[in-house]
Amino acid sequence: MNIFYNSQHSPVGAFASFTLGYKGASGGVGIGLSGPACQNVYIGAESVDCHGRFSALPFYKENIEHHVETEPTAQDVWGDSDRRSGGQDHADEQVEQAESVTISPFPDDEISRLTTPARDIWRCGDLEFKIYTPSQSVPDMTLESEFMSIDPTITKDALIPAVFAELTLDNTAGASPRKAFFGYEGNDPYNAMRRVDIIDTKNKDAADTAKANDINIKGVAQGGITGIFTDDADVTCALAFSADELLADDIADRLPFGLGTTGLLVMTAKPYELRTWRFAVCFYRAGVVTTGIETVYMYTRHFKNIEDVAGYALKNFERYRAEAAHFDAMVMERGLSVERQFLLSQAIKSYYGSTQLLFDPIAAKPLWIVNEGAYRMLNTLDLAVDQLFFEMLKNPWTVRSVLDQYADSYSYADEVKNGVGEKFPGGISFTHDMGVANVFSAPGRSAYELCGRSGCYSYMAQEQLVNWILCAGVYWEGSRDDGWLSSRRETIEACLASMLNRDGAGVDARDGVMDLDSCETGGGAEITTYDNVDTALGRARRSSYLAVKCWAAYLALSKMFDALGSAGLADTAANQAQRCADTIMRYRRADGTIPALLEDGDAAITLSIAEGLVYPVVMGLFEDMALAERYCVFVSAIKKHFEVALANGCKFESGAWKMSKTSDNSWLSKTFLCQFIAEKIFKRPPDAAADKAHASWLLDPNNALQAFSDQMAAGKICGSAYYPRGVTSILWLG
Amino acid sequence: MNIFYNSQHSPVGAFASFTLGYKGASGGVGIGLSGPACQNVYIGAESVDCHGRFSALPFYKENIEHHVETEPTAQDVWGDSDRRSGGQDHADEQVEQAESVTISPFPDDEISRLTTPARDIWRCGDLEFKIYTPSQSVPDMTLESEFMSIDPTITKDALIPAVFAELTLDNTAGASPRKAFFGYEGNDPYNAMRRVDIIDTKNKDAADTAKANDINIKGVAQGGITGIFTDDADVTCALAFSADELLADDIADRLPFGLGTTGLLVMTAKPYELRTWRFAVCFYRAGVVTTGIETVYMYTRHFKNIEDVAGYALKNFERYRAEAAHFDAMVMERGLSVERQFLLSQAIKSYYGSTQLLFDPIAAKPLWIVNEGAYRMLNTLDLAVDQLFFEMLKNPWTVRSVLDQYADSYSYADEVKNGVGEKFPGGISFTHDMGVANVFSAPGRSAYELCGRSGCYSYMAQEQLVNWILCAGVYWEGSRDDGWLSSRRETIEACLASMLNRDGAGVDARDGVMDLDSCETGGGAEITTYDNVDTALGRARRSSYLAVKCWAAYLALSKMFDALGSAGLADTAANQAQRCADTIMRYRRADGTIPALLEDGDAAITLSIAEGLVYPVVMGLFEDMALAERYCVFVSAIKKHFEVALANGCKFESGAWKMSKTSDNSWLSKTFLCQFIAEKIFKRPPDAAADKAHASWLLDPNNALQAFSDQMAAGKICGSAYYPRGVTSILWLG
Repeated sequence: MNIFYNSQHSPVGAFASFTLGYKGASGGVGIGLSGPACQNVYIGAESVDCHGRFSALPFYKENIEHHVETEPTAQDVWGDSDRRSGGQDHADEQVEQAESVTISPFPDDEISRLTTPARDIWRCGDLEFKIYTPSQSVPDMTLESEFMSIDPTITKDALIPAVFAELTLDNTAGASPRKAFFGYEGNDPYNAMRRVDIIDTKNKDAADTAKANDINIKGVAQGGITGIFTDDADVTCALAFSADELLADDIADRLPFGLGTTGLLVMTAKPYELRTWRFAVCFYRAGVVTTGIETVYMYTRHFKNIEDVAGYALKNFERYRAEAAHFDAMVMERGLSVERQFLLSQAIKSYYGSTQLLFDPIAAKPLWIVNEGAYRMLNTLDLAVDQLFFEMLKNPWTVRSVLDQYADSYSYADEVKNGVGEKFPGGISFTHDMGVANVFSAPGRSAYELCGRSGCYSYMAQEQLVNWILCAGVYWEGSRDDGWLSSRRETIEACLASMLNRDGAGVDARDGVMDLDSCETGGGAEITTYDNVDTALGRARRSSYLAVKCWAAYLALSKMFDALGSAGLADTAANQAQRCADTIMRYRRADGTIPALLEDGDAAITLSIAEGLVYPVVMGLFEDMALAERYCVFVSAIKKHFEVALANGCKFESGAWKMSKTSDNSWLSKTFLCQFIAEKIFKRPPDAAADKAHASWLLDPNNALQAFSDQMAAGKICGSAYYPRGVTSILWLG
Repeated sequence: MNIFYNSQHSPVGAFASFTLGYKGASGGVGIGLSGPACQNVYIGAESVDCHGRFSALPFYKENIEHHVETEPTAQDVWGDSDRRSGGQDHADEQVEQAESVTISPFPDDEISRLTTPARDIWRCGDLEFKIYTPSQSVPDMTLESEFMSIDPTITKDALIPAVFAELTLDNTAGASPRKAFFGYEGNDPYNAMRRVDIIDTKNKDAADTAKANDINIKGVAQGGITGIFTDDADVTCALAFSADELLADDIADRLPFGLGTTGLLVMTAKPYELRTWRFAVCFYRAGVVTTGIETVYMYTRHFKNIEDVAGYALKNFERYRAEAAHFDAMVMERGLSVERQFLLSQAIKSYYGSTQLLFDPIAAKPLWIVNEGAYRMLNTLDLAVDQLFFEMLKNPWTVRSVLDQYADSYSYADEVKNGVGEKFPGGISFTHDMGVANVFSAPGRSAYELCGRSGCYSYMAQEQLVNWILCAGVYWEGSRDDGWLSSRRETIEACLASMLNRDGAGVDARDGVMDLDSCETGGGAEITTYDNVDTALGRARRSSYLAVKCWAAYLALSKMFDALGSAGLADTAANQAQRCADTIMRYRRADGTIPALLEDGDAAITLSIAEGLVYPVVMGLFEDMALAERYCVFVSAIKKHFEVALANGCKFESGAWKMSKTSDNSWLSKTFLCQFIAEKIFKRPPDAAADKAHASWLLDPNNALQAFSDQMAAGKICGSAYYPRGVTSILWLG
């Protein structure tokens, strides 16, 4: 099993990752990026028997030629290159550093690795490197405003933009002292690397402040945005043009050097000593970071700069480490297979890497954002509906917050049209997203949707309407937040009206399945979240995948109207659910399959048709025996379809599941949903072979750079890299 | 003459450039970068005879393959690639955009260009594109604090982080409407491109605010940091994955699209119309931008975001354009040759690109920074001493501000040592710089200097001491700021003491020339600003280049002590000047040359020995006839040396001047200083052949990417790219 895969080690809500695990300059510390920072990361130690020879984990680019004169074609050639490059008779200077130091990667077969949801551990000989990502729950930030703050300690604890690391060197068998090191070569275009030493006596003011604040840290950083820090007084920090220069014995002379592009923390284990050093890998982005809505990171209200983050992180290191162990225990004692543990761990880590908790100082409101992985679209609603199972466990208030953001700022009203372009009343729907990469789109508009299309970038009016309703239902049911439900009565009523209008113009035309496209599409047609898979899954109109979600949405609406005391609307919704189920059943074929498009003659089949079943189950709707009975046959029909599909084309040769028989592009996050449905609802045993195949996709060296990725064309990433959606796997926990 | 050279079109103090002129994706809008942003910039128009065929200035990468599936090796592969890339049966979507649009570069020989200090003009057929950089003087910001502000209008005017552009299309001969366009593809790693349309009716709140503030702008931007804006209501702005998509006729459908990586402003000239559109190219960096000292850009106190900048820029467009013309007139009517106009223009533009006016909110103090070009070191003192002639003309207070920053925070006291390591009292000196790339180094420390070296990265204690004194002398003399001089009495006294101690231990050992190296160098030795040229110029001890600067520094000290009423110290300084001159004279050889190192047997010769003469001349010291007489022979001796050197090895074959006979690495900024000295002091006629050769260096396609670059190894950049120091050429004016 390949162990050289990237994982995103991420704090909560900082849109930041310390990404590590793929060979080469493939990881590093990044804020707000669309992929790994691709920096050199140096973690290693001196060999037992040879002074000056060092081994490191293979997370840097080997054989970098230092001080090479380069053609001036890139912006940083002159900025980052050694000024000596133009030297002539100073060539002798270059050999002033006489001591020869070499760093080589540990051999692959000597490295072992264990990734859990909240930890990642590499072992190599007598060196061990651990990363902790405690992923604590975040208090309900909507209770926090410019004028009011919930318990600042709890908030600060949860929002700290840092992850935690330990390096242990077991020198108990060594008669000589041995150095160890941890550092990186940043590549931010705007800020230099720097050495931080708060205990620096020459800088008396800083030292006094640090002392007063009980901050006693040192480290290396890139400007004020990223850094690696420790509170261990025995550690030495410095910069140089390359890591090897810093492992030479003259490091004391190099301390003040500010031009180095690589920063290391260097420490020494004494003879016969087993020594552990601890570190905080920190992130900080000051000031307004978004446009459209001008917001700051919420953590900037609790930490004044990266040094402050580092001080707090290190002071509370033990507590954070315990939190990580606690989170792991919660997950790991549930008996998941090794493959599922791996998949879930990768999914959770990439999810947190995409989370971004912002604060709008003008509205005095928090904004919870999950960025769409490499695409970085904000709170993409067709992801939110899948990720909500995870958040209902960790931070249910974020689900409500996203629902409110959509209802208040990112909804719109449309008209709908039939196949010959006749227009009819439509109703409310929600945008695909709220913008992209720190740019909020205008209210009522997504960054994604364009008119005049019937494929990628078209509108998703029906899909997003259903997604909002399902999020609302699951949130309300899971939180029993009746106050919120009441406050959204108007929106929920508008949702039902809009659902009806999309089904057909007038009661007689309605069969519970969407027939009318939004006029926002112009001459085009609506699509679903499966925007680049195939027509079987990509087209919205009469999609059976979307129909089952509509059925679930009608059930959720019915339940919500019951709770709101609107019996009439509850009935309307319930009747629509029944109509929808009946229509789907009507298309069953002799072999038990249901076509992907509820039209005559469509042969395509998908696994995704089953997806909608998850919502009533999670909402516990079938605990109402009458309802369970009413849909028993329907659920059985979907199960029958599912089993036939799985046996006839919806599986890859490897055993991996295939969402659509007619496309090689299958999505892991959606597969996890289907696995939950298969096991929980259809009572199928877990498909261990499929799990192995799915894990092998992420482990494939062609894919493993991008941590958790979702869209795989026969096992090769074809989109949705560095992606948060995989947390649907939390459903495996049951 | 090559016209495809980059120029940095820069506001004052924003550390920002709209760089343009080199072919390909070589320019663009950048903040705080070490070189050109290397973005695609699109400027062009529709052809007269063929609808859908466009021509553009060649400032973009041609033949970009759109939507290509790429290996996931770079961080942005998935983030920036078209989501369609994974599509299968949606391939037909890709041809939905039926209209065929092509953009081709104008033929080279149809383009003409004129670069002046405050303008840059490209003409091609019936299209004209102009950039204006008014470079106004900045009011004395040290009078501005958290609680007090000088006239906010004047400050705001001068600090606006914008440059100004006009595109004219002469369609008077055209019977059809023709489109024109201006836009770019940003490459900031953190922010998406976005469309700005304050008049957007769907966004009512924003529209109301804009109306209230009389801001009526539209444009395309990258997050909140860079953007191109207009106030012309007829212009349409949109994003797409490529420029050609935006020139198709369906642009109205594309307006809301937020995922595009390229943004264009598209406009149309009516039949038979000559139309000019105006634009503001704006920059904005919010929040704390530096570490070590936490500061914000001064302009953030006057503009709340980039839209605010754009609104103000466009509202006052005519005034800024007039300012640019005014600045140009001031320079251009001085009768400089074409080559000198070009060199000076390039120098001024690159200088402003490196300027950065910051504000420290805690100390309530402004911080004026000139970044060291591609190296980005802060206020490098051996540059400041050369750039001060320019600032004495534009913003004398910045010279004082830098002097104060060095005196208050970046000075140190050392001991000195002789050749056998004996230590003696030293004294005050100043650090080489104050940090690098937005990272302030610790007080009393530079980013650059390291101990244990005798070449690059060694200490420059004597050089920087002399530089501070010379800056102080020129500032005081030029501004007659006696109050400042009195306030710095202590520092100036310390400077004299330190000068003496570096000359030798005890009066008897002193000959006016530096003999003792700073103990900060450890086992190494001090260097000069010529850190990578050769030993002739690079070594500080007994350097004749440095000796003449010491002589000038003693004269400046003497004059300052006179003004301070310290006759005794004035005498001491005057005597040291005499001693220094005498010593230099003693080393004259039969051929009239003076060795680069004032030691027996040194054969090396340099032009740079003359440099120090500029300071007493600029300070007007030789208006004191007694002093002029006293040093008449000395100056003549330097002149003799200079002429012999120029005739015997200190010239390249091309006619370009060569600072050191023994090195091919010659620096343009220093050459300009020497030209001033040759013409003003030695009364030599201007060397037109040399000017041609120097201009040809910057125009060489191998160098022209980096705008003004300083260090040239036989005409090829070997360091100091994108560099501010060339403003020594301002001395040509007078």
